[in-house]
Amino acid sequence: MTSLHCPTMSGPQTSEPAPDRQEDWSAGSRDEGAADGSQHSHRMLNFSDALLSIIATVMILPVTHMEITPEQEFDKSVQRLLATRIAVYLLTFLIVTGAWAAHTRLFQVVGRIDDTFALLNLACMMTITFLPFTFSLMVTFPEVPLGIFLFCACVIAVGAIQALVLLYAFHLPHLLSPQLEHATHRALHRRRVLGVILQGPALCLAAAGFSLFFYPASYLLMAMVVFLPYVSKAASWCRGRLVGSREPPAPGLESFTFDLHEPLSKERVEAFSDGVYAIVATLLILDICEDNVPDPKEVKERFGGSLLAALGSSGPQFLAYFGSFATVGLLWFAHHSLFLHMRKVTRPMGLLNTLSLAFVGGLPLAYRQTSAFAKQPHSELESVRVSCAIIFFASIFQFAIWTTALLQERDTLQPSARFGGREHAFMFAKLALYPCASLLAFASTCVLSRFSAAIFHVTQIAVPFTFLLLRLLVRLALAALRASRGLARPVRSQAAPRAVDDTRAPLLPAAC
Amino acid sequence: MTSLHCPTMSGPQTSEPAPDRQEDWSAGSRDEGAADGSQHSHRMLNFSDALLSIIATVMILPVTHMEITPEQEFDKSVQRLLATRIAVYLLTFLIVTGAWAAHTRLFQVVGRIDDTFALLNLACMMTITFLPFTFSLMVTFPEVPLGIFLFCACVIAVGAIQALVLLYAFHLPHLLSPQLEHATHRALHRRRVLGVILQGPALCLAAAGFSLFFYPASYLLMAMVVFLPYVSKAASWCRGRLVGSREPPAPGLESFTFDLHEPLSKERVEAFSDGVYAIVATLLILDICEDNVPDPKEVKERFGGSLLAALGSSGPQFLAYFGSFATVGLLWFAHHSLFLHMRKVTRPMGLLNTLSLAFVGGLPLAYRQTSAFAKQPHSELESVRVSCAIIFFASIFQFAIWTTALLQERDTLQPSARFGGREHAFMFAKLALYPCASLLAFASTCVLSRFSAAIFHVTQIAVPFTFLLLRLLVRLALAALRASRGLARPVRSQAAPRAVDDTRAPLLPAAC
Repeated sequence: MTSLHCPTMSGPQTSEPAPDRQEDWSAGSRDEGAADGSQHSHRMLNFSDALLSIIATVMILPVTHMEITPEQEFDKSVQRLLATRIAVYLLTFLIVTGAWAAHTRLFQVVGRIDDTFALLNLACMMTITFLPFTFSLMVTFPEVPLGIFLFCACVIAVGAIQALVLLYAFHLPHLLSPQLEHATHRALHRRRVLGVILQGPALCLAAAGFSLFFYPASYLLMAMVVFLPYVSKAASWCRGRLVGSREPPAPGLESFTFDLHEPLSKERVEAFSDGVYAIVATLLILDICEDNVPDPKEVKERFGGSLLAALGSSGPQFLAYFGSFATVGLLWFAHHSLFLHMRKVTRPMGLLNTLSLAFVGGLPLAYRQTSAFAKQPHSELESVRVSCAIIFFASIFQFAIWTTALLQERDTLQPSARFGGREHAFMFAKLALYPCASLLAFASTCVLSRFSAAIFHVTQIAVPFTFLLLRLLVRLALAALRASRGLARPVRSQAAPRAVDDTRAPLLPAAC
Repeated sequence: MTSLHCPTMSGPQTSEPAPDRQEDWSAGSRDEGAADGSQHSHRMLNFSDALLSIIATVMILPVTHMEITPEQEFDKSVQRLLATRIAVYLLTFLIVTGAWAAHTRLFQVVGRIDDTFALLNLACMMTITFLPFTFSLMVTFPEVPLGIFLFCACVIAVGAIQALVLLYAFHLPHLLSPQLEHATHRALHRRRVLGVILQGPALCLAAAGFSLFFYPASYLLMAMVVFLPYVSKAASWCRGRLVGSREPPAPGLESFTFDLHEPLSKERVEAFSDGVYAIVATLLILDICEDNVPDPKEVKERFGGSLLAALGSSGPQFLAYFGSFATVGLLWFAHHSLFLHMRKVTRPMGLLNTLSLAFVGGLPLAYRQTSAFAKQPHSELESVRVSCAIIFFASIFQFAIWTTALLQERDTLQPSARFGGREHAFMFAKLALYPCASLLAFASTCVLSRFSAAIFHVTQIAVPFTFLLLRLLVRLALAALRASRGLARPVRSQAAPRAVDDTRAPLLPAAC
C-alpha cells in the first residue's frame, strides 16, 4: 500500500525549501519517536491554532449581540458604543494574534514534544483563553487597577509557561529542532530566545506595577507589548531599504538558520487563518439556529399555523446568511489561492494577514447590521455601507499581501505567480474581485437613495455562482469541442493544462 | 536549509504505512501541481474538517442557553425539555458526522483539486451548515411536512454536489487519487462510489415524498440514512466473526486498495476531533465573555464600586470554567496519546470516536449546569451527577476505542502500545483515569448529601496539575541524581528513555 502512494505524486525536483512540518509526516520516524517517549508536535500545534483562532474572534460577539431595537435610530450614541466595542474587538484580535505569533516562534525552537510539553501547552492555552475576558474587563473599568492587573497577570503567566517550555526543551536537547540540536552555541541561543519570549511579560510586570499609582503609564507599556514587534520590524525594514545593506549575522550563529525575527511558519499561518474563516462562517449559522427557529405558539397565533409564512417573515435573515457565507467562503478561497503560490511568509505579510483576518472576523457584524436594518431605508443604507467597508478592508489587505509578496517575488512567490508567470494575471483578478465589487457597491449606495439590502445579499450570493458557472461552461464547451473532434490525445499531459489556460482569458473581464 | 531538515529526523525504517496525506507535504510536487492548475487538497480538507466539527457541536447551544431561573426547581418538566433538546443535539451530531464521513470518503477518491473543486466544496459546506437549522425546525414542528421537506432538500443538495464533484473528478482523471488514476476499471469504480454517495439522498427523496401524506414513514427512512451504515457494518463484522471468512475481493478491484467501507482517514479523524475539542473548550469562554463582565452601573450600586467584590460574586463560574477547560484539555490529551499509537482507524473505532465526541460536546452543558445550580443543595447534586455522567461517557467511549483497537492490535496499533509493549500499561492508565474518577465522583454524590460543586471543580482542576507535577518531580529528581553522580553519558541515547520509563511506575497507582 505504501508503494502506491508516493511514486506517482513526486514531481520534478525544485529548489523550494521543505515546509516546516514536513518531518512530521515522514512515516519512518513515528515509531522511533515513540521509543523515547517523544512525539511529533504536528497535531498539538493544529489544536493550538484552532483554539487561538477561535479565541481571537470571540470578542466580535459582544459587538454583534448588541441590542438595537427596531424603533431605535442608528444615531450618534449607538454609533459611539459600537465603535468602542469594535475597537475592543480589534485590539483583542491583535493581542491574541501576538500570543499566537509568540507560540509559533517558541515551537519553531522545539522540534518534538513529550507528554509534559502537551500538558504545559494546555496550561498555556487555558491562560490565553482567559485573555479576552481580562481585556474586556480592563476596557469596561479603565481606571480600576484590578482590570490592568488581571490582564498583566495573564500575560506574565503565559510568558512564564513558555519560558518553562523553553528551558525544559533545552534541558532535553533531543526535543529541540534539528538545527538547534546540533548547534554549537546552544546556551547563547537559549539566552536569545528566552529574551524574546520574556520581553512582553517584563513590560507587563512594569505595567502592573504602574497600575497601582499611575495607570496611564500602564496603558503605554501595554501598547508597546502589542505594537513594538511590528514597529521595530517596520523600522528595520525601512532602514534596510534606505541604507541598502543588512548587517552580517553574528559569528557562531550560522547554523541557526531560521531568523527569530521572521517567526511565521507558512503552515501555521494557514492553519490559524483557516480557523478564523471557519469560526466566522459558523458564527453566522449559530445565530440563525438560536434565533430563527420559530416558536410553535407564535406560529399558531401570528401566522395561523402556517410555518411557511413564519419562515418567510425571517426570510431576509436567511438571505443575509447565505450572502455572508458566500463572501466568507470566497475570501477563504482567495486566501487559499494566494498562499498556494507563496513560498514563505515574511513578517510584514503576516501583519497584513492579521489585519485582513481581523476584518474577516467583523463579517458577522455586517450580517447582523444588514439583517437587523433591512426594513428602515436610511439605516439600511448605513448598514450596507458598513458591510461594504468591512468586506473592502478584508479583501484589500489580502491584496496588499500579494503586492508585498511581489516586491520580493524571488523569495516569496512560486515562479508561476511572479510577473509574467502563467498564473499572475489570474491571481491578480481573483484578489482584485472583492475590493472592486465592494467599492462599487459602496459607490452605488451614494447614488441610489434606496439601495435594498436584499439586492446586496443577492449580489453576494451571485458572485461565486457566476464565477463557478463561467468556469464550468467554458470547460464543458471545451470538452464538447474535443469530443466532437474525436481527438484521442492523452488527457493528462496536454489537454488539461490547456483547458485551464483557456478558461482564463474569458474570465478576466468578468472578474474585474 | 533544506538539507538541515530531514537527515536528523528520519529514523530507522519501519513497516508502517505512510499517512494518507503524506504526499501533500512532499516539497517537490508543489510546483508541478501548480503547472496544470491543480492543487493538493490538504488545506481545503482541513478547512472543511474545522467547519464541520463546529457545525456538529453548534446544537449544544440551545441546550446550554436554556433559561432556568434560580427559583425554578430542577423538576420533571425542565428535565423533559432538557432531554428533548439533548436528543436533538445528539442526533444532529450524528447526522453532521455522517455528512463528514461521506465527505471523507469522497475525498479519498479525489487526489488533487482545482479551483472548481474548491468552489463546489464551499457550496457543499454551505448546505451542510444549514442542516442543523432544518433539523431543529423538523423537531420543533414534527407534524408539518415543510420541516421534513427542507431537511431532505438539504441532504439531497449535498448529495447532488458530491456527485458533481465525483463526476468532475472522473472526467479529469489526473485529479483522481493515484490508485484510481491508474486503475483499469475506472467506470466500474465510478458506479460503485456514486452508488455509495447517492444512497442517502435517494432515501431522503423518498422521505420527502412520504412527508406529504404519511410522515412517520419519512422519519423511518431518515433514521435509516443515519444508522444504516453503522448497522450494516456491525452486521457484516458480526457475520465475519461468526463465519470466520471474508469474501474475496471482486476481480479487477485489486488495485483499488482502499476499502470503501473503511472510509476513515486517520488524519481527518484527528482533524475533526481537534475541531470538536477546540470549539467545546472555547464555547465555555464565550459564555464567560458575554455574561460575566460586570456592568459599571451595577458595580457602583450593588458592590459599592468594588470590582473585586463584583467578580467574586461570579467566582463559581470562573472556577467552573477552569475546571471544564482542564477536563476538555485532558480528554483531548488522552485522545491525542491514543491516536499517536494507532496506525489506522476502522469503522467501529470511528463510531466509538463519534460517540465520545458527542459527549465531549455536551461538556458546556455540564459547565452551565454546575455553575447555575451552585447555590441549591439538591439541584447541585443533580447537576454534579449530570456532569459526572457526561464525563464518564466521553471517557469510557475513548476507552472503548482502545479496547477495540486491542482486539485487532496487529492492524491498528503501534508495536509499543500492544499487549506487553512498553507503552501499554501507561496508555491503559491514561485512558482509565477519567472513567474511574467520574465514577468515583458520582458514587460520592450518592454518599455525601451535600457534595459541593466547588469541590468538584477544584478536583477537575487538580487532576492535570498533580499529573504534571508528579512527572516534573520525578524528572527533576532523576536529573539531580544524574548530576550528582557526574555521569557524562550522552543524554539522547540512553538517559532520556530511561527517565520516561521510570516515571511510569510511580504514576500508575496515582492514575487509577
